[in-house]
Amino acid sequence: MKIIVDAMGGDYAPEVVIEGAIVAVKEYDVDVVLVGDEKVIKALLLKHKYSGERISVHPSQEVIGMSESAASSVRKKRKSSIVVGIDLVKNRVGEAFVSAGNTGAVVCAATLGLRLLPGVERAGIAVVAPTLKGISLIIDVGANIDPKPSQLLQYGVMGELYSRLILNKPKPTIGLLNIGEEETKGTEIVKDAYELLSKSALDFVGNVEPKDLFSGKSDVIVCDGFVGNVMLKVSESAAETLNIFLKRSILSNWLGKVGYLLLKKSFMSYKQKLDYAEYGGAPLLGVDGVVIIGHGRSNVKAVKNAIRVAKEEVEAKFNEKIIEAVSKTGEKLQVS
Amino acid sequence: MKIIVDAMGGDYAPEVVIEGAIVAVKEYDVDVVLVGDEKVIKALLLKHKYSGERISVHPSQEVIGMSESAASSVRKKRKSSIVVGIDLVKNRVGEAFVSAGNTGAVVCAATLGLRLLPGVERAGIAVVAPTLKGISLIIDVGANIDPKPSQLLQYGVMGELYSRLILNKPKPTIGLLNIGEEETKGTEIVKDAYELLSKSALDFVGNVEPKDLFSGKSDVIVCDGFVGNVMLKVSESAAETLNIFLKRSILSNWLGKVGYLLLKKSFMSYKQKLDYAEYGGAPLLGVDGVVIIGHGRSNVKAVKNAIRVAKEEVEAKFNEKIIEAVSKTGEKLQVS
Repeated sequence: MKIIVDAMGGDYAPEVVIEGAIVAVKEYDVDVVLVGDEKVIKALLLKHKYSGERISVHPSQEVIGMSESAASSVRKKRKSSIVVGIDLVKNRVGEAFVSAGNTGAVVCAATLGLRLLPGVERAGIAVVAPTLKGISLIIDVGANIDPKPSQLLQYGVMGELYSRLILNKPKPTIGLLNIGEEETKGTEIVKDAYELLSKSALDFVGNVEPKDLFSGKSDVIVCDGFVGNVMLKVSESAAETLNIFLKRSILSNWLGKVGYLLLKKSFMSYKQKLDYAEYGGAPLLGVDGVVIIGHGRSNVKAVKNAIRVAKEEVEAKFNEKIIEAVSKTGEKLQVS
Repeated sequence: MKIIVDAMGGDYAPEVVIEGAIVAVKEYDVDVVLVGDEKVIKALLLKHKYSGERISVHPSQEVIGMSESAASSVRKKRKSSIVVGIDLVKNRVGEAFVSAGNTGAVVCAATLGLRLLPGVERAGIAVVAPTLKGISLIIDVGANIDPKPSQLLQYGVMGELYSRLILNKPKPTIGLLNIGEEETKGTEIVKDAYELLSKSALDFVGNVEPKDLFSGKSDVIVCDGFVGNVMLKVSESAAETLNIFLKRSILSNWLGKVGYLLLKKSFMSYKQKLDYAEYGGAPLLGVDGVVIIGHGRSNVKAVKNAIRVAKEEVEAKFNEKIIEAVSKTGEKLQVS
């Protein structure tokens, strides 16, 4: 299996991407094609003493910056690592594409280059979030900021499959993010999506309120990409801000400093629990190809895990299952 | 000054509401009318040894539950403490209404009973959130889940005034919540609101991304009520979940337990920083009367502070300022 990896994407690229790829090929029995500045990549492979056969380099001349406009950068920078990498998947050089670069650009390049799977109306980004009971999958977190109710239903279908086949939950439940529990709550679009989800074959548990986001009330949480993106970023930001507040108040007195030393191990295990790097990247579901979007701040472990997730999705023949599932949406049937 | 207080609203009502009122009349030189079950309230006043003249009781026979549907409960329960309390403000028995009860019902009863201020299109709930630099005001967090761009502009205008006159920030900046910094980001409604805010007299600093929610990038953050409600609840929930994770990992070993004892003071000061009770209730801005909505889990301090905020809003003749400001929206003028 060959995974195409955007060597230039992410805040700490290319170095951490290359290190992550080196670890991944050893651990997961996959080949990796690194797309990007050939000279720089080869120098870094040398620096990290990699001389194996499993990693090859495919040159690309341009880079799309993390804050560039998605649509126009994909249109203009045809030689960027993202556009070139997606083309390699399109032309079946590799089975999957992994990038920790500009999320909007990856979504745009993948949707234009790979097209949507038959029957899928819009692609959605799914992320794994830690909860008090384990993990939940949130879909969509930014690919589609203005979805129709039928698209939210499809996110439920794709999320259920991902949760079952990749996250290994035997009978995933589906919730709809809403600002109240009653089915009469929310915007017209959310109310219509509620009805569609109720009538579907999914194990729909109704509305999930934002206060229950981390309680693990449902295995999958469906929402529009605007709200999903806000939730994701606010959670991250809340966690970081809380840690800063806590550190400030702990280090403001000597008793705190001593206590902090004793607690170091606990703080580490707590941080690990919240570490996005543990969960790998976020799959872009619904496009005709496996695409994994890594966190902008991906470190070596995150890159490695994103490659692992890509491999698992390919092995599960995940996209074939999506085509089958969306074709049966509405019927009381489940794909396995 | 007389503040009408819903004695039956909130998870810990009526007891904490009555205790909060007792503290408030002593501290803030206001009179309070407690609305609710007369017998119960009088017994609790006795229990807490209050026999002064500043607190009176106005009976109401019904209670709207925390999870009842807003519109239908307000329509059906005309004798509820919320509807009766709003009527007392409407009939000028008191200058302001404070409730920690069902938020939707308070918004609904206030909008129907008090009507909107001249020129105001929709009411909005504003909340104060702690940031790394101090505090920010978020508006709207749930009154209006499907706002028009012009309504978002008015939230900016009302938020600026509140931030300046009540929170005492000399020159508040206004930001628009969006999933990217560029003005081309977001839904059509958000893009149109961006344009209106840019052209207004407000000190508009552009889009504020959710990751900057707690960084204090702008003094006021404008958003629709659906997204605002999600942000608020997700932040609360993230904070609680993090504390649970942290406690679990700390108490899992004896070194942690010792460290925890040394850190107790730091944890307390950290918790206080995040305590909503410090900031009092959330004002419902735009209705013809002062209405403060307390957190459902309001404790004595939160009730007391909500009464303080109500008093400050009345003293500032805040609603007159809103009428003046919205009438000038678009002109390069500011009300002081």
